[in-house]
Amino acid sequence: MPKYYDEVDVVLRALADPTRRAVVQRLAKSPAVVSELAAPFSMALPSLMQHLRVLENAGLVMSQKNGRVRTVSLKPGALDVLHLWLGEQCPPPERQADRLGIHLTRTTPKEA
Amino acid sequence: MPKYYDEVDVVLRALADPTRRAVVQRLAKSPAVVSELAAPFSMALPSLMQHLRVLENAGLVMSQKNGRVRTVSLKPGALDVLHLWLGEQCPPPERQADRLGIHLTRTTPKEA
Repeated sequence: MPKYYDEVDVVLRALADPTRRAVVQRLAKSPAVVSELAAPFSMALPSLMQHLRVLENAGLVMSQKNGRVRTVSLKPGALDVLHLWLGEQCPPPERQADRLGIHLTRTTPKEA
Repeated sequence: MPKYYDEVDVVLRALADPTRRAVVQRLAKSPAVVSELAAPFSMALPSLMQHLRVLENAGLVMSQKNGRVRTVSLKPGALDVLHLWLGEQCPPPERQADRLGIHLTRTTPKEA
């Protein structure tokens, strides 16, 4: 089992929750302060903070405190492991074409 | 909220489980009969069948019964919604470059 599968596991568990997914979607646009992230949800702040901790532990977001304001941002390359996993499961058409090329090279008899 | 987000939700919940993810990984290589899918797991067959039902309901796999043998395969385009969602969250470099191009076209004053 590739080592990065553990990361895939943590990332998918984090993203399987619609609130956490909405937070990631919001942060994909730009960093945001916690109160701004909480605004669209009818949720107590401690619950949101708990979701943010799950996202942080999954390596998806990071945050920085400046005085009393905490700004959260999407970690660069946060979703790379998921791209990687997806690419392994259903290779994009150009890679499929490459494979076909390899297959043809291997199976087509050379001209005498 | 885009309509396909409901599908993303169901797909991510299905894939958040390591057994179901292992089944998808196996089926990405080729279709397989149920006993073959069950082999790597120390799991009762009814439990595996339950995982397969979750994957089937999520639109990820399909199965066909021929006599007493059920063959399961990955549904074509099964993971497309996830590719789509991921692409929205962190556009690949070429799309980011496109955006920059659009931005520059819009903001660069034309020569007089």
